[in-house]
Amino acid sequence: MSTSIIRGKYVICEAGTDAQASRVISDGAVFQRDGIIEAVGPYEELKSTHQADEELGGPGFVVMPGLVNAHHHGRGVTTFQNGCIDDCLETWILSGWGRRPYDHYLMTLYTSILMIESGTTTTMYNHAQTPAIGLNDDVSEVLRGFADSGMRTAFSVYFRERNRVVYQDDDQFMSSLPADLSTSLRKFLAAVDLSEEDYFSVFRGLHQQYSGDAYSKVTVLLSPSNVHWVSDDFLLRIKEEATRTNSAIHIHLVESPYQKEYGLRTWGHTPVKHLNTLGFLGPEVSCAHSVWLTDQDIDIMAQTGATVCHNPSSNLRLKNGISPVNALLGKGVNVALGTDSTAINDDDDMIQEMRLAAKLHRQPGLDQPALSSHQALRMATTNGARPTSLQDKIGTLETGRFADLVLLNLNAMTEPYTDDGLDVVDLLLYRGKAIHVDTVMIQGEVVVKDGRFIKMDRAEVLREIKEQFARPMEGQALEAKKLANGLTPFVEEFYKDWGKADVAPHYGYNSRV
Amino acid sequence: MSTSIIRGKYVICEAGTDAQASRVISDGAVFQRDGIIEAVGPYEELKSTHQADEELGGPGFVVMPGLVNAHHHGRGVTTFQNGCIDDCLETWILSGWGRRPYDHYLMTLYTSILMIESGTTTTMYNHAQTPAIGLNDDVSEVLRGFADSGMRTAFSVYFRERNRVVYQDDDQFMSSLPADLSTSLRKFLAAVDLSEEDYFSVFRGLHQQYSGDAYSKVTVLLSPSNVHWVSDDFLLRIKEEATRTNSAIHIHLVESPYQKEYGLRTWGHTPVKHLNTLGFLGPEVSCAHSVWLTDQDIDIMAQTGATVCHNPSSNLRLKNGISPVNALLGKGVNVALGTDSTAINDDDDMIQEMRLAAKLHRQPGLDQPALSSHQALRMATTNGARPTSLQDKIGTLETGRFADLVLLNLNAMTEPYTDDGLDVVDLLLYRGKAIHVDTVMIQGEVVVKDGRFIKMDRAEVLREIKEQFARPMEGQALEAKKLANGLTPFVEEFYKDWGKADVAPHYGYNSRV
Repeated sequence: MSTSIIRGKYVICEAGTDAQASRVISDGAVFQRDGIIEAVGPYEELKSTHQADEELGGPGFVVMPGLVNAHHHGRGVTTFQNGCIDDCLETWILSGWGRRPYDHYLMTLYTSILMIESGTTTTMYNHAQTPAIGLNDDVSEVLRGFADSGMRTAFSVYFRERNRVVYQDDDQFMSSLPADLSTSLRKFLAAVDLSEEDYFSVFRGLHQQYSGDAYSKVTVLLSPSNVHWVSDDFLLRIKEEATRTNSAIHIHLVESPYQKEYGLRTWGHTPVKHLNTLGFLGPEVSCAHSVWLTDQDIDIMAQTGATVCHNPSSNLRLKNGISPVNALLGKGVNVALGTDSTAINDDDDMIQEMRLAAKLHRQPGLDQPALSSHQALRMATTNGARPTSLQDKIGTLETGRFADLVLLNLNAMTEPYTDDGLDVVDLLLYRGKAIHVDTVMIQGEVVVKDGRFIKMDRAEVLREIKEQFARPMEGQALEAKKLANGLTPFVEEFYKDWGKADVAPHYGYNSRV
Repeated sequence: MSTSIIRGKYVICEAGTDAQASRVISDGAVFQRDGIIEAVGPYEELKSTHQADEELGGPGFVVMPGLVNAHHHGRGVTTFQNGCIDDCLETWILSGWGRRPYDHYLMTLYTSILMIESGTTTTMYNHAQTPAIGLNDDVSEVLRGFADSGMRTAFSVYFRERNRVVYQDDDQFMSSLPADLSTSLRKFLAAVDLSEEDYFSVFRGLHQQYSGDAYSKVTVLLSPSNVHWVSDDFLLRIKEEATRTNSAIHIHLVESPYQKEYGLRTWGHTPVKHLNTLGFLGPEVSCAHSVWLTDQDIDIMAQTGATVCHNPSSNLRLKNGISPVNALLGKGVNVALGTDSTAINDDDDMIQEMRLAAKLHRQPGLDQPALSSHQALRMATTNGARPTSLQDKIGTLETGRFADLVLLNLNAMTEPYTDDGLDVVDLLLYRGKAIHVDTVMIQGEVVVKDGRFIKMDRAEVLREIKEQFARPMEGQALEAKKLANGLTPFVEEFYKDWGKADVAPHYGYNSRV
């Protein structure tokens, strides 16, 4: 049995949609026993009524709920570090094929350490199929990495079976290629092939393993990778499986303008409308990116209760634009926040991601909406909790929830002076940085102390990664790199007559006339 | 006499418009004598031909030109820290009236320390008229602050004589206010009044003081604050004075949609067209913000050779939108970069500002423009040098220029692995942070060593600021705060029927249809 009192000059119990709706206690504290919050209230009151093994924080700190990174694919050594320059999503994905294969355990540990040190305590991790290694082994290693780091994880494997190079049937695209390129591509795709049966078998195994335990740090989600990457039948099977197992579903959605255009060309309407026609959308569904939403799509998202996982950095980096978050929030859509492993500073820092979101969604004009600091923090906490299936367990600091929390150094954030009248959530959103994260607790366990990850030897993890990455790239990876380079001009050629439709932006950031 | 060799695994001599145009030396070095670069070349060559008092850097570093913050108003303790939440420019400016008065010397020292520690070596500082203290005293204290910090400074006082509360004649606006508010406002405006004669007298004094010395760290600029804030006659006087004294001009321009609309309402065309009609624009003119430029405005900027000082953070924070930088660069306009004292992280970090610019200007679509890392660095170096009047003295590392340079810790930027094939400028733009700044040299003097400002006692500066800010706010400041609060609803009311025109965005980041 282990108990602690965590004290702060401010305890942000819940980020609301605005300052009035947020719950903040001045000179407050949280009391936790074995990872579950038993009480939250004024410090003096808690101190006098609760005996604790340890006391953390103090009047020089802010206590906030641990952040939820609601869309992530791992990769502590980033795609950029692996040699892939940001590009249009459709060509950038290809360049990723040429990445050096990596040790899933070490890579997951490293990405978790980076995220935890910057205040993230839960990650919605979406596993991409990689060639060469068995899926079960990969998955086990990833989950071992998350477990050893202490990170809470909403885990899914994504399934992708068609239109995998361009938004066209794989065979049809291959038939348009020179013979050698076509042969290499066929071989590459075969190596990442996964049958629907195998997909569901992996899901069921994991679901069974983790769903029974109320204290489990892992929840398991289903994930068709995107509307155009799977069949309608598969989407319906996923929906059934989700209903049967009471599981959540995570999907990529209209990340790029070309993905929207695929819908218009294929079904005569948007991908969102297509999903809605299938009856796929619902409160258990979360949709990453969701940049190219029309007004009608936004209404559909609102009516079905689906969540949008907003990825502002990734959407800019991969030339996908800016999701109309203000319009979504205006219609009552639940919008979460994630780094997609391509945060603005290439470091998966959710504090910086919240800030980018808060600055980006400030539409010109006195009467135009602007995302508030409270709403941005809410996106990274409560709104992110929902798609993890842990909406009653994480995201806020209240009795009965997991003790997933972060202590920020208030003095460092306010140095050398900050007006007393300022709201603490504004303070966090304007001036908080990863470097201000002093302590991180996940399910009652202190994993960061004095700003340093203490659960494992960080330097040793880095040393091992360094050693592995120092080895020369080998046959299969080099081949994939060559293949990706060879395909790029054909992919560019494929989209040559796409993207010609007029757009009518949600946000008027500037004007030609 | 003092000499040094500064060595880096990469020496970025000049950021070009793209990778081909940039000049980077591998295992290179810079040799400087008394603040002037005498040679740049391969390290071994320089080492064998030049005797130096000291050697800085090494194979674990990147050497780059010092960054130029091309639009700044001081304020190390930020407007936010002073209690003003970001808002629409037009109401936010008012809230700034209620700021606590500060010690210009200390504040300039502090803002300079923050900027220098994050790699800035030159600041385009634009001095706003503040009430209560004599302008000459303020200016001397600001210049003393810059001098003691070591910062190179392009200095201007901005002049503002009309339409100072809303974009309407001051008397007319005051007559629409309740009597008490009108009286307070008249008193406040009188306190910041400055005659044209006094303005030119201050300029001429400074110009005489600094213009003769080729080694001076200060250049002096003229600055009408914005088109609508001064008379046409004043603009013409400024132009004449600039020609007579061979000085540069710095002006704010179409920062907000309302400023553009003021032009349309007043002259029947845009402010840019108005300036062009007056014959005001030219290569000596730099224009901050420049968000609300039409296609025709962009052509005018290109034809006249004016510079745009882009402020991406500020434009988002103050609800002004996103300047069409890609279109400007496409037409050959010189675009510099500045934080406007409202950087995204509230810290005047130009590395982060370059990155925000680089990410923000990535338009969706394979055939749409995206700002390259090289172009972003060029904006913060060469392009920023031009409006300071030091285009031949700073911005690049070459013989005869000032030794203004920064050493970045390459190992920390690449940890634990980064592909060898990546471009060093991409590396800086994707992964560089202020924390990687190891050494900063300004005109041959080392002002940052091992990441710490060493020219003065940083802690002592902070202690003094802390002490001054701990004092209670006094009569005049409290009155100004009350006045600003009282005026806000009237300002909001004034703009109620503004901003109704259709916009046709330069950037299609998303689409309603």
